[in-house]
Amino acid sequence: MNLLIRNGKSVVNFVCFMLIVFGGSVHSRGLLSSQDRPKPSNAAPFARWLVSQSSWGVLSTIAEDLGGAPFGNVVSFSDGLPNEGKGIPYFYLTSLDPTARYALKDHRSSFTLSEYPLGTCGKIDPEEPTCSKITLTGKLNELDAKSEEAETAKKALFAKHPDMKKWPKDHSFQVYKLDIEEIFMINFYGGPKPLTVDEYLRSGMKKVTAIM
Amino acid sequence: MNLLIRNGKSVVNFVCFMLIVFGGSVHSRGLLSSQDRPKPSNAAPFARWLVSQSSWGVLSTIAEDLGGAPFGNVVSFSDGLPNEGKGIPYFYLTSLDPTARYALKDHRSSFTLSEYPLGTCGKIDPEEPTCSKITLTGKLNELDAKSEEAETAKKALFAKHPDMKKWPKDHSFQVYKLDIEEIFMINFYGGPKPLTVDEYLRSGMKKVTAIM
Repeated sequence: MNLLIRNGKSVVNFVCFMLIVFGGSVHSRGLLSSQDRPKPSNAAPFARWLVSQSSWGVLSTIAEDLGGAPFGNVVSFSDGLPNEGKGIPYFYLTSLDPTARYALKDHRSSFTLSEYPLGTCGKIDPEEPTCSKITLTGKLNELDAKSEEAETAKKALFAKHPDMKKWPKDHSFQVYKLDIEEIFMINFYGGPKPLTVDEYLRSGMKKVTAIM
Repeated sequence: MNLLIRNGKSVVNFVCFMLIVFGGSVHSRGLLSSQDRPKPSNAAPFARWLVSQSSWGVLSTIAEDLGGAPFGNVVSFSDGLPNEGKGIPYFYLTSLDPTARYALKDHRSSFTLSEYPLGTCGKIDPEEPTCSKITLTGKLNELDAKSEEAETAKKALFAKHPDMKKWPKDHSFQVYKLDIEEIFMINFYGGPKPLTVDEYLRSGMKKVTAIM
């Protein structure tokens, strides 16, 4: 019986270990319940869901020192405080990094997100149309650091990315905003979903909660 | 004692459930052991590791119909058969999708990967320099479908992305290759790692095995 108790305890310890290792990982990577995922046919709420639930993506600018090549860079972002996202991506960038430098010279930009890291695609290949992806194209602009918009955006960024608060002061990080002009989203078979910027920005965002 | 056995069994069943749920997720998302990760100071092997272990990224091209904006798109890729990667990314694209259409008109392109989806960044923010990222800039070219290179690349793509075999024949998917001209990689503090294309391509790739 003692053996059984010990075995039972070992098993319980093992379960706890699994929960810590994988549960911790799940939390840190923000896996979501697929039941919160809007129907793919509801293009605007779907797009807002994908943007609000994501925490990072690839921001592309024009690299003037690489013959005008499109240059994608991995960045973190936020579109608002938790459950208050407005759909507009804000970034915290330093001109020590090429993306901000490029944007200051040429504002043309796009921001690309995949649903894959959210964990709601399951085992579907990331290029399959049913694992959604969105590209917001527009102009990337540095905000006036003293503006109310920059202050609000900073709060939203820091809420989603607490590490940002600790980033080196002498790197002069500034808030940048993508002014969206075009939206390209694929979230099912049949090609990109027709979706205007106005429809996207006006759409209410369904409140969702990540599994802890 | 029976109760203990039953409890023990319940616990074991629960462990199995946890393993299936989270283990399945881990496998499908290809989480790796961090012990296989090369040292950040070994720039070339690190870059080759990051590319070979990744399965998708953002491919940026110039969108001529969006005022020449850089247009990022989520794509799957392969740099070779398992453990035989050569560092050159190959894609399976259709000109029904804008990325291939753009590339056929303007070959300038970049391909961007984050280490974050591999699971080896832990809880580090995706924009932190210690969560690595790489941008391969160059020219995106469609391969001659009858060439040996296209055949080999197709095998590599299908090995990593079995779903590709089932993609619609009438979409005319073709193999594309990124001819790399510049490498931008951040994998630690202190700015991008100096790394030439030659160093990258000549580097041996450390064989690694994903946790199943």
